[in-house]
Amino acid sequence: MNPSNIITLTTDFGYSDGYTGAVKGVLLSEADAVTIVDIAHAIPPQNVVAAMIALQTSVPYFPPGTVHLAVIDPGVGSSRRGLAVQSAGQYFVGPDNGIFTPWLDDADIIVELNMDTGNDRISFTFHGRDIFAPAAAALANETAITELGNIIDDPVYLPIKKPLEANDEIRGEIIYIDNFGNCYTNIRSDDIDGVRVSEITVAGKEINWLALYFAEAAPGDALALVNSSGYLEIAINRGSAAHELEIAVGEPVIVKTKKDG
Amino acid sequence: MNPSNIITLTTDFGYSDGYTGAVKGVLLSEADAVTIVDIAHAIPPQNVVAAMIALQTSVPYFPPGTVHLAVIDPGVGSSRRGLAVQSAGQYFVGPDNGIFTPWLDDADIIVELNMDTGNDRISFTFHGRDIFAPAAAALANETAITELGNIIDDPVYLPIKKPLEANDEIRGEIIYIDNFGNCYTNIRSDDIDGVRVSEITVAGKEINWLALYFAEAAPGDALALVNSSGYLEIAINRGSAAHELEIAVGEPVIVKTKKDG
Amino acid sequence: MNPSNIITLTTDFGYSDGYTGAVKGVLLSEADAVTIVDIAHAIPPQNVVAAMIALQTSVPYFPPGTVHLAVIDPGVGSSRRGLAVQSAGQYFVGPDNGIFTPWLDDADIIVELNMDTGNDRISFTFHGRDIFAPAAAALANETAITELGNIIDDPVYLPIKKPLEANDEIRGEIIYIDNFGNCYTNIRSDDIDGVRVSEITVAGKEINWLALYFAEAAPGDALALVNSSGYLEIAINRGSAAHELEIAVGEPVIVKTKKDG
Repeated sequence: MNPSNIITLTTDFGYSDGYTGAVKGVLLSEADAVTIVDIAHAIPPQNVVAAMIALQTSVPYFPPGTVHLAVIDPGVGSSRRGLAVQSAGQYFVGPDNGIFTPWLDDADIIVELNMDTGNDRISFTFHGRDIFAPAAAALANETAITELGNIIDDPVYLPIKKPLEANDEIRGEIIYIDNFGNCYTNIRSDDIDGVRVSEITVAGKEINWLALYFAEAAPGDALALVNSSGYLEIAINRGSAAHELEIAVGEPVIVKTKKDG
Repeated sequence: MNPSNIITLTTDFGYSDGYTGAVKGVLLSEADAVTIVDIAHAIPPQNVVAAMIALQTSVPYFPPGTVHLAVIDPGVGSSRRGLAVQSAGQYFVGPDNGIFTPWLDDADIIVELNMDTGNDRISFTFHGRDIFAPAAAALANETAITELGNIIDDPVYLPIKKPLEANDEIRGEIIYIDNFGNCYTNIRSDDIDGVRVSEITVAGKEINWLALYFAEAAPGDALALVNSSGYLEIAINRGSAAHELEIAVGEPVIVKTKKDG
Repeated sequence: MNPSNIITLTTDFGYSDGYTGAVKGVLLSEADAVTIVDIAHAIPPQNVVAAMIALQTSVPYFPPGTVHLAVIDPGVGSSRRGLAVQSAGQYFVGPDNGIFTPWLDDADIIVELNMDTGNDRISFTFHGRDIFAPAAAALANETAITELGNIIDDPVYLPIKKPLEANDEIRGEIIYIDNFGNCYTNIRSDDIDGVRVSEITVAGKEINWLALYFAEAAPGDALALVNSSGYLEIAINRGSAAHELEIAVGEPVIVKTKKDG
């Protein structure tokens, strides 16, 4: 796979420090003619699920051979491994903590990054700059992924629960709340394909229909829809469902269904 | 007008999700050799006035033929139209909700974007990615604006009140508060050209002079000035006027004037 | 020194207004084939120390000849001078308020920017756009730094206290708290080179060892380490030291030491 000369960045570094700047400096110093694309740097600190969803939302739209560098890394400096992954026509570089879960099962290749770079001055606290950015730059420079480390087959997966289906019900839960207060469930569009949704219960509220878009509901009214990333989502038209329905991550969601036909 | 190969982005998507990343992925996949420029993604949610002012602050400084993609879109998925506008040597792409008001009267051409892209999988909730980004990429690729849809002459304008002038007074109001707490009025530099301002009253406070720059006032003192975007603004040197003078959007502002000469 | 065609931006403009967009528009209009890199725009308002630390964290990683444009500028419009600095293989452009302190002593050249640009319409409130951005673009275009103004030798330094050493103690203080709540002291790695740290006291808490990385401490436990920017830092593994230890900027820090050997 030829690289696209694009490297995207997803971190929890925030926007008030120089940490993303250091990573960008390394990329521009080491990669030739690279285009750096900021996806998001205000991922909630150390929230690997949020980072994974940000990647699911954006990765499918990039040109083939794009390198996605993601650093949400609570285990930095410990024995946690670093990964480079080739999957779905894209490259991924970051910590082995489940952040790339959706791309692992169908990966073409997964390597454990070689941490012994021969540089004594490698920081123990900033692998984003010292390990992951050089690896991403190498991929953008057409270095073969197998030169970055040894192939492994036991990457870490995020322990996201699958929804349970039984008795005309799908039981799931809220796994993420976005910047607008929209509440993502762990129920995917595939889970409700071919069934008719008759009622959705969350946080003691009942929602009686699946909408196609926000403006179907009156301003201030709750709705459920399959969002643009493929998750069943609870939302409020022109409002924050998380705030107004008092929904937090972990809240159970019950979908009552009828089989079509 | 030849495109500049620059596309700017202004949204209320925030910095903790993958939504801007998805838009950037589409632009990089569909536009040739494009430079993407982030203007701001923390526009207050669904605040079309704030987005319009961010564009007024920045658009005049870009090279001719730049494409400005703006997505603050409370009506997404409803019958709200999408627009492409050519005006003042620049292109604009986004929802038809008044966000481009300052460029509408003198526009060379305004088209209603064709929403029927032949793509069944168009999301009903993410026109920024599925409609506006492809249109912006097309303009950057030198597609004629008239190929994007039909010409219209009835775009939506923002209902911003004009200030009232009478009896040596100009009566306006606060329309926007920026990140520093500076309070923008709806009074433009043109409105006070050729008049001498003797007193400005806002939120029960009197300000007796128009300053040229913040540091004219002692730290902590209030001042009024015509800001770098051409609006009469209430500010506090090294402080937040909104916070310290308790000013909110909608607050009346009275300017007492004397004719020059 | 040949420019790298890269200009970095560090400001306190935030992410909800068009101010950084205006600066980027000027750079793209005036500099040829420039790559603009956002370092951070949510530097705490008018906090020059925070901006200096963001630059220390990132500048060393950029290619030689990169231009670093920094606008944290409480004195804008007053008689405060503007600077262009060539130092450590990099260029710096911004206000003369100490923001470039770490690069001043060893600078190759420091010039006071010529403010008389012959443009009557220069804003008194937005030097970032009207003075600094054109100067940065000129450097990226290979204009000699001496053409931007007169050489000076009395730039403003930030009044950061040096730590005091006496009686097997180093007495310093907290000078900055980052986005994760990590607390930077004014004690640098050089200050504790060749000494053994036996105890660190801050905010009434005792920390008994210097860690190499966060994950050495149990989650929730406090630690001290020399961070990736070379500062001694108080941190909590997977937590916010500022919040949990109730540490604010200015808090004293006492390091008890034993000489090695």
